[in-house]
Amino acid sequence: MELPAELLQTLRAHFGERLSQAASVRQQHGKDESHFSAFPPDAVLFARSTADVAFAVKECARFGVPVIAFGTGTSLEGHIAAIKGGVTIDLAGMNAILAVRPEDLDVTIQPGVTRKQLNEHLRDQGLFFPIDPGADASLGGMAATRASGTNAVRYGTMKDNVLGLEVVLADGSVIRTGGRARKSSAGYDLTRLMVGSEGTLGIITELTLKLHGVPEAISAATCPFPSVEAAIDTVILTIQSGIPIARVEFLDQTMIAAVNTYSKTDHQIAPTLFFEFHGSPASVAEQAERVASIAAEFGASGFQWATTTEERTRLWAARHTAYWAALALRPGAKAWTTDACVPISALARCLLETKADLDRSGLISALVGHVGDGNFHALVLVDPGNPAEVALAERLNQGIVARALALGGTCTGEHGIGMGKKDFLAAEAGGALSVMRAIKQALDPDGILNPGKIIKD
Amino acid sequence: MELPAELLQTLRAHFGERLSQAASVRQQHGKDESHFSAFPPDAVLFARSTADVAFAVKECARFGVPVIAFGTGTSLEGHIAAIKGGVTIDLAGMNAILAVRPEDLDVTIQPGVTRKQLNEHLRDQGLFFPIDPGADASLGGMAATRASGTNAVRYGTMKDNVLGLEVVLADGSVIRTGGRARKSSAGYDLTRLMVGSEGTLGIITELTLKLHGVPEAISAATCPFPSVEAAIDTVILTIQSGIPIARVEFLDQTMIAAVNTYSKTDHQIAPTLFFEFHGSPASVAEQAERVASIAAEFGASGFQWATTTEERTRLWAARHTAYWAALALRPGAKAWTTDACVPISALARCLLETKADLDRSGLISALVGHVGDGNFHALVLVDPGNPAEVALAERLNQGIVARALALGGTCTGEHGIGMGKKDFLAAEAGGALSVMRAIKQALDPDGILNPGKIIKD
Repeated sequence: MELPAELLQTLRAHFGERLSQAASVRQQHGKDESHFSAFPPDAVLFARSTADVAFAVKECARFGVPVIAFGTGTSLEGHIAAIKGGVTIDLAGMNAILAVRPEDLDVTIQPGVTRKQLNEHLRDQGLFFPIDPGADASLGGMAATRASGTNAVRYGTMKDNVLGLEVVLADGSVIRTGGRARKSSAGYDLTRLMVGSEGTLGIITELTLKLHGVPEAISAATCPFPSVEAAIDTVILTIQSGIPIARVEFLDQTMIAAVNTYSKTDHQIAPTLFFEFHGSPASVAEQAERVASIAAEFGASGFQWATTTEERTRLWAARHTAYWAALALRPGAKAWTTDACVPISALARCLLETKADLDRSGLISALVGHVGDGNFHALVLVDPGNPAEVALAERLNQGIVARALALGGTCTGEHGIGMGKKDFLAAEAGGALSVMRAIKQALDPDGILNPGKIIKD
Repeated sequence: MELPAELLQTLRAHFGERLSQAASVRQQHGKDESHFSAFPPDAVLFARSTADVAFAVKECARFGVPVIAFGTGTSLEGHIAAIKGGVTIDLAGMNAILAVRPEDLDVTIQPGVTRKQLNEHLRDQGLFFPIDPGADASLGGMAATRASGTNAVRYGTMKDNVLGLEVVLADGSVIRTGGRARKSSAGYDLTRLMVGSEGTLGIITELTLKLHGVPEAISAATCPFPSVEAAIDTVILTIQSGIPIARVEFLDQTMIAAVNTYSKTDHQIAPTLFFEFHGSPASVAEQAERVASIAAEFGASGFQWATTTEERTRLWAARHTAYWAALALRPGAKAWTTDACVPISALARCLLETKADLDRSGLISALVGHVGDGNFHALVLVDPGNPAEVALAERLNQGIVARALALGGTCTGEHGIGMGKKDFLAAEAGGALSVMRAIKQALDPDGILNPGKIIKD
């Protein structure tokens, strides 16, 4: 698709050098971190303000040209692919932190602010923002995909931590949703509708987020288990007991071995949980003791504290590099990442059956999980140049999703639908898909906002 | 409006004795607990199943007849008033608890189950559902109004505690939203869209809710303060410090005096906070000590534990009867209840300015607040037979809402819009109201679901 000359002219007059049609720029903006190939847009705009975004959307709307919002390009289901061409709006330059309000524990930011940037900024004030997907993603993108990460078991997901939004709609008009009150019963929850809508209902141009005080004390621990069930049963009883655990991450034997090699650690090769506890010094100590005693009930004997900050940092660095550690198991391979999430009572079964399927496939794979939420990722290592392997990974993913749905779960705990999971969403949502379609039609009748995502044609 | 004879016949054939047109039944179903007068529907159906609801909605849709969902009728903004006539579906008979799953800390129920019924049922299993509006409301109604209560500072509101819904849409079709996974990024968040939609987008016929383990230890405390600011500053610092307080309720001097008289307690007459702490015995003790020390920083000296269960029960019983205690200040009067919610940094100012306005008005009034959320209620006592007083209360309410909005807050923290706050919602939402309208139009094109609520014509 070529952009209409008049549109291009109008956009160039407004954006000047901030409009690019260079092949490299287009290519870079058409590809995220997933296995999908690039779908470059016809042009890329570098926005600096809400007015820029509103102007661009309004002009594109006039010509029925697709508009795709782009943050850091770290999505995992082809969210930012310009599959019908059009104009990508890069929001990375809108990265101002507009207001931090310690008394209210909230912050207002532009959408291009990344999670690490925000936390750097907050550090001196004793505040932090807890949502931590693997990548240093933009907060606009994290809201758009309803992202989460390792802290969700305690602090929730983006859904729970966005107070309000400014959004540019499909006609270029600008609205505000939510606000700064901690709760409200004022009409339809448009904030939650926009969170997770992946740029298909509007483009987020400002966010007000909840903040949290940095806990007085933080401690971490690791524990190997005799079996996957023992590890998951420990998590279930921990949560049932109301222990306000901040993080609980599962790594299977393959992943532990990979981490040991990659991060030069010496964890016992066993299904393992990594824990983190937040609170007062006394509460943190008590939480850890209670979890250690629960783990012992399920046959674990190697509960190990990370007592110093250095040890703790090393432990979580090892967890955060798990993706690259897994990749290193097969040099040259790419990882196909699954994202099932099930009720926690079904998690051990889901993990074990998945592991059996993966082992049978002959492909190398490793499992990590945000198990407090019932969410896990299989990293399936494939040679991207080998269509049979890619097809096999795809079939394995289908099997994992089918199992998760059969167990009352979801096809995606935190990565979103994008272009990769539209069929799965149709299966999961059933008749509710028609409601999603009606909403999309109502808010974007010409279908210009990130077309080809979330909802099957 | 008279119901079409054919519709009536069809409904009677299906519902038999469970269709009523008796004046008393219609009257009772046209009036909630607010100051609004009754708007009786033309008929009331007593539903026993989702199929009943779907059938009724489908038939009403065929004739363009309004359908209003009714739980316990305890709403506070005229939510259930049949202002355009039509058929009210009473869901109180759909009160089965379908499945409790302790391992997953969730429960699936029919919409007529009330919060007390649910908690009675859960008691033996060491589980509870925390959302506690004043009334023993139905959980379907609580979801529909995005209700909260005294536990929201720790456990969130209905928005945070509904995992999934079954909903009958405006055409009588039935969908499921959400699911049992603790988190999901699977498409638009229809669950959150339905929560708070007050029966205008669909009728909730089943809910899956999050549960919580009953804390090992619970303790409560009260503390009088030298000023409103001192009380609110204590709350702000408590929350900033990450103390996981379960409840923190504010009562002004008038309310404390009213409670003393009504509940025969002897609280010092001062701006007062009631606290509750949940956790392990050690953590509860630590939380209370830390809060006591924060309160002391702000000049409070009377921090008092409710050490026994009996004392604690008595304390919260006093809080929960505050509404009637206030009413007793002026026998024969009705209470006009406001519901502003502001960022907590603005709460002291908002409370003080409100109090000054109320005092100037000459009407008797008392203030209570879920202050951890920035939410408070003024109970303004009016003689319902005195139009001047009613008009004055209405003006006071307008002033409170205007102040809340100017301070970055919302016109309703937990009661909803109903018919009473449509103008305020328009002011608060601005351009976003047109998005709400577009969604309403998309999901209920003939406007049969609870017409005249939330969105101004």
